[in-house]
Amino acid sequence: MSMNPDTLIITDVAPRDGLQNQQVAVPTEAKLELIRLLHAAGVASVEATSFVSPKAVPQMADAAELMEHVHRELPGLRASALVPNLKGLQRAQAAGVREVAVVLSATETMNLKNINMGLAQATEVCEETLLAARKMGLRTRAYVAVAFDCPFEGPTAPDTVLRLAAAMHRAGADEIVIADTIGSAAPGRVKTHFEALRQAVPVDQLAAHFHDTRGLAAANAWAAIEAGVRRLDASVGGIGGCPFAPGAAGNAATEDLVLMAEGSGLATQISLPGLLQAVAYAEARLGMNLGGRSIKWLRRRYAGPEAAPART
Amino acid sequence: MSMNPDTLIITDVAPRDGLQNQQVAVPTEAKLELIRLLHAAGVASVEATSFVSPKAVPQMADAAELMEHVHRELPGLRASALVPNLKGLQRAQAAGVREVAVVLSATETMNLKNINMGLAQATEVCEETLLAARKMGLRTRAYVAVAFDCPFEGPTAPDTVLRLAAAMHRAGADEIVIADTIGSAAPGRVKTHFEALRQAVPVDQLAAHFHDTRGLAAANAWAAIEAGVRRLDASVGGIGGCPFAPGAAGNAATEDLVLMAEGSGLATQISLPGLLQAVAYAEARLGMNLGGRSIKWLRRRYAGPEAAPART
Repeated sequence: MSMNPDTLIITDVAPRDGLQNQQVAVPTEAKLELIRLLHAAGVASVEATSFVSPKAVPQMADAAELMEHVHRELPGLRASALVPNLKGLQRAQAAGVREVAVVLSATETMNLKNINMGLAQATEVCEETLLAARKMGLRTRAYVAVAFDCPFEGPTAPDTVLRLAAAMHRAGADEIVIADTIGSAAPGRVKTHFEALRQAVPVDQLAAHFHDTRGLAAANAWAAIEAGVRRLDASVGGIGGCPFAPGAAGNAATEDLVLMAEGSGLATQISLPGLLQAVAYAEARLGMNLGGRSIKWLRRRYAGPEAAPART
Repeated sequence: MSMNPDTLIITDVAPRDGLQNQQVAVPTEAKLELIRLLHAAGVASVEATSFVSPKAVPQMADAAELMEHVHRELPGLRASALVPNLKGLQRAQAAGVREVAVVLSATETMNLKNINMGLAQATEVCEETLLAARKMGLRTRAYVAVAFDCPFEGPTAPDTVLRLAAAMHRAGADEIVIADTIGSAAPGRVKTHFEALRQAVPVDQLAAHFHDTRGLAAANAWAAIEAGVRRLDASVGGIGGCPFAPGAAGNAATEDLVLMAEGSGLATQISLPGLLQAVAYAEARLGMNLGGRSIKWLRRRYAGPEAAPART
């Protein structure tokens, strides 16, 4: 993946992070259609699903089927899948997945609540999964979750985040995603975190993942960009949340970050009218209003004769 | 006014920019109460009213009465008033006003639509008003409006903004407010503008004024802060707009900027629960829902036992 400093690479996590947290069961075909619409809008990377236990997360029981469809239909799309451990990795490999992601929470309590093991053991599981994935020739992402604040332990020290990010880097993660899981970051802290992190990990392997709980996701994303980060996670329509993090809200909306980036001279190759079609589709499927902070303006802007033709 | 680099000075423009654009007529006592609540929340500077023609803007016909009340009741508060010209300045002086603001739009067409004179003549009027205000011993602010985009002429060149800001500086403006009147800026452009501007005007005399039309006001404010700006305009609850600028939406919400600043280690001396009380008051008076992008989170945060006692 080229890293032109004037290009922003967005990974849309709506199919996984967004749809995982819905009350409504979303059929495989609807997930696939959302991924098709994102691809049609110019999104080059999506987080498609998760190879977790179907008992724990029944919304993701169709992971293998979905990935097989995605690879067949959209061979040019980067489509990653979360894997919690070696077992999940093996299922992902069997389904032909080419990119996997592991999640390491930065605190003892978050790991215990989320996966019933402590930080040291969780780190080991992520390391062995990354090493095995590399041997399989897969591309890898490693999340460092609750990297700013933990709902159980409070603020996360930049040093802790740096240490865990460095461990993931040593274990071979191609991309290390620093995640503001509960949306509590502010841009001054984002700057501090990433200025420390880029001492430990090459900045072109760092990504940032914000939630918009306090309305500061765009400002936080800008602070990450100013610190040299060119890889951001986002979710079309701002869909998302975290079932294990009390008070977490949706992800930074893809349309907000694209609008901000393009207005700031950073190319994304993503079409805003195309994203609006994906938002409209997700709204219809989920039966709820979606959209980031720019959605009203975008709909007004693209409602006129210059709008892309509606998909039927 | 001290300019500690770790302190942000917010001027709340809700009493003027916010209330001027309402359909509902707001009585003087309600304006005064909103100013009282802002002062109680720790806001040190407000834009209270405008000494424009009462025929053109009947909402501001009570300017003299309001300012007399404000000065008597809240002598420690910085309370400025817009003045369109020498006549308005004289009315402001007669009312005991200690700080006035002039508005210079950056384009020919915006000036013609707004005040029926061209850019050169508008610049002269602002200059003579600033010079006269200084002779009276008043503190002065000068807005450069439509500093990013004009609804009639499109993008505003940074050079134009720099030239007009320098002219206002030469005419003695204590503070030069760069205004994104229609809320079309993005943080990359904010950075470019202010890095140019601080070559012409000392950065501690620059202020930034954003509207939140596209949901990027906080990101834009952060970009201004990173460029060294420590004076921001905002409007409690995001109230505001511009009657002469099609498509303009509310101002950056004071609560959003305070939340962002405090989370980033910049002091504001402003209480978030205090701002929530001002938002609640404005909502009741105006009969509409108000609040910035953080309002849901703030209300949840301060709804518990830790909330400030409600004002009765």
